[in-house]
Amino acid sequence: MEPIKVGLLGLGTVGSGTFKVLNRNQEEIRRRAGRGIEITRIAVRNVARARAIAGNAVEVGNDPFALVDDPALDIIVETVGGTGLARELVLRALRNGKHVVTANKALLALHGTEIFEAASASGVMVAFEAAVAGGIPIIKALREGLTANRIEWIAGIINGTTNFILSEMRERGVDFATALADAQRLGYAEADPTFDIEGVDAAHKVTIMSAIAFGVPMQFEHAYIEGISGLHAVDIKYAEELGYRIKLLGIARRAEQGIELRVHPTLIPSKRLLANVEGAMNAVLVHGDAVGATLYYGKGAGAEPTASAVVADLVDVTRLHTADPEHRVPHLAFQPDSLSSTPILPITEVHSGYYLRLRVADVTGVLADITKILAQGGISIDALLQKESHTVNQQGRPDGETDIILITHVTVEKNINAAITQIEALSTVVSTVVKLRMEALS
Amino acid sequence: MEPIKVGLLGLGTVGSGTFKVLNRNQEEIRRRAGRGIEITRIAVRNVARARAIAGNAVEVGNDPFALVDDPALDIIVETVGGTGLARELVLRALRNGKHVVTANKALLALHGTEIFEAASASGVMVAFEAAVAGGIPIIKALREGLTANRIEWIAGIINGTTNFILSEMRERGVDFATALADAQRLGYAEADPTFDIEGVDAAHKVTIMSAIAFGVPMQFEHAYIEGISGLHAVDIKYAEELGYRIKLLGIARRAEQGIELRVHPTLIPSKRLLANVEGAMNAVLVHGDAVGATLYYGKGAGAEPTASAVVADLVDVTRLHTADPEHRVPHLAFQPDSLSSTPILPITEVHSGYYLRLRVADVTGVLADITKILAQGGISIDALLQKESHTVNQQGRPDGETDIILITHVTVEKNINAAITQIEALSTVVSTVVKLRMEALS
Repeated sequence: MEPIKVGLLGLGTVGSGTFKVLNRNQEEIRRRAGRGIEITRIAVRNVARARAIAGNAVEVGNDPFALVDDPALDIIVETVGGTGLARELVLRALRNGKHVVTANKALLALHGTEIFEAASASGVMVAFEAAVAGGIPIIKALREGLTANRIEWIAGIINGTTNFILSEMRERGVDFATALADAQRLGYAEADPTFDIEGVDAAHKVTIMSAIAFGVPMQFEHAYIEGISGLHAVDIKYAEELGYRIKLLGIARRAEQGIELRVHPTLIPSKRLLANVEGAMNAVLVHGDAVGATLYYGKGAGAEPTASAVVADLVDVTRLHTADPEHRVPHLAFQPDSLSSTPILPITEVHSGYYLRLRVADVTGVLADITKILAQGGISIDALLQKESHTVNQQGRPDGETDIILITHVTVEKNINAAITQIEALSTVVSTVVKLRMEALS
Repeated sequence: MEPIKVGLLGLGTVGSGTFKVLNRNQEEIRRRAGRGIEITRIAVRNVARARAIAGNAVEVGNDPFALVDDPALDIIVETVGGTGLARELVLRALRNGKHVVTANKALLALHGTEIFEAASASGVMVAFEAAVAGGIPIIKALREGLTANRIEWIAGIINGTTNFILSEMRERGVDFATALADAQRLGYAEADPTFDIEGVDAAHKVTIMSAIAFGVPMQFEHAYIEGISGLHAVDIKYAEELGYRIKLLGIARRAEQGIELRVHPTLIPSKRLLANVEGAMNAVLVHGDAVGATLYYGKGAGAEPTASAVVADLVDVTRLHTADPEHRVPHLAFQPDSLSSTPILPITEVHSGYYLRLRVADVTGVLADITKILAQGGISIDALLQKESHTVNQQGRPDGETDIILITHVTVEKNINAAITQIEALSTVVSTVVKLRMEALS
């Protein structure tokens, strides 16, 4: 059989990785797919550089629209990135009846509904394993491997940059700025790291996973997003003393009133496997009602790990591209006419445990005042740490202040917020309360 | 559309779990599969008990052959176990043009070639996610998720009984017999635990994974199998002191001369995630050339975790049962006409690091003699631990003996065996040498 013909948009990290893996393992891939898979055309800005990489057998040009209009191509791989040009190209390719493979999480989290509708209208597939957690086949696990389950929750370390920074902060005791500079120097963080460190990238990914897990449309606009740039080294230290590590988690949970969809720094018990995922690695914990907890771990970024996912999608599409659409896995795991309208909950309605750090005057009765406020709010305390008072003021004399760290049992966020407002109004509490969320993951 | 009709052979742990999950999550599953999936007929020995579980809507009988011959059924789920009756029933179902879903690792490891050929001849599918690592979708990951990769090696904790026993031995410092008795009391080990503790069950599973990973036929008869019943508590303790934990691993590796296929107790660095998989949990580490290391973790046994895999297979088969076979994933990941004849290597040709424990007379020169033998065999030492000599003889006096523990760099097994023979011939070495294999997993 003729090889299937693939057009590649972009030849950056993911694009060139895909080209390389597809070529190096072409024999192995053909033995699996039953048919060769060939990139026959590439559209890039820098044509000369692309020619040097791709050689003469591949048609290289700088017009991406000409590529998606090329009738000789069966599948388009989009590695352009962003949500402007990429969206236009993907929609045009789909309307031209071409299957699309993409690693573009922002595009799917923001425009997934439009894109999947365009694909269905043309009877073609959009495959996006590479959009979440790089080489880890987590989309396949959620969409196909766990179909027997009512998925209850997902908690993932799905951004390598922030996990690297948090590992550095904990292991070396450095502050956020130092760890970020290290990450930039070592290539784990971009020059403008905003999307990573502020949690936006993780929110794109958990949005995609929530849609697949719960059969709801993509709703990035309702995700709660809090990054790690405001995280203090002292909280990592105190968390460690209490038996926890802090990770930036993307969390999606089926609650009674709706779906929780949130990204924030999270305390998790140090003994959990997820707590021991260090450096730039990714891992996703999925809890289903039948299977219990399952965990998927691997490299979440990089040229070849991401290419691993892109090429796996190419094999799937190759196998099914002439099949009746009913033989294919639905884009969001659930049949398009079976999506649910369960709402995404606002963060104030989320249930969580909380870590609170309070700076207080070291006088009698302060702890009683605080615990009374929590008790009145129906919030019970799981653990408490009071540090010895040995800090000094600017004159070098004991300042008579101390840190109190509390971990609460699970409560609804609006209650903890109300309690914090009351606590901060106490005259003995000398600064704002630091609040972090905590998940037992059990 | 009419629900697809499933016949269930057996209603033990896996069978009843499958029935329960399919019923409880029927709405969720229908939304995913686009069609209902119903168990309409069951064949069991104890018909009365089955009627009590299954209710009146299901036809219950005690003739399994009548069930596999029933023209009303589309898919047969085999949960009978064993390789006798189960083999007959599966082959007959396939020849009758029915798809088969099975959790039977022994059947596939021993008769996989015959079964897949029968399935291909009838144009039907055999699905077996539940045969390896219970609810963890590892077959799907290997067969579909990692198709871009040349798989280099797999190392898995794929038997919960032995992992539970090893966790007990390490955490509580007890010997094998005590830990086994605990496992039996708690339901983690069977009354006759031979298949689990001697590594046979793990060997069935790693045989199946090796076939999928490397595109070779099932070759259980060439697997090297060593269980944990001969493992001493003292070696777990010494390993811990050297920074290792001992796990029963199923290992499949692509080596230069062939494929390594082996199950044995293995030292692995304590810091690896795999070393921290405790109790009855399973985890499989897969190394691909593009993706690097990926890990899959979850419950490897139990009614609902195994049912999770069985039902996921039912959804896959439901989706593809009217599709052209070319649209389906090949049983062993590679197209049947593309299997490789790469041989399985004998254990003497395997490359590994080694842990050696020697009991020696505590006299000058003994270590020099031993290291000289290793050096002459081209074996270099990675770590050495000599215990203080404070053991006593039966009269309560110092016996003048001491333990020497060595960890070697990677070498070929026949060389280490030759060196051990020479070491045991030394007059200063007072007992046989304990040899365990070590994997860095990097």
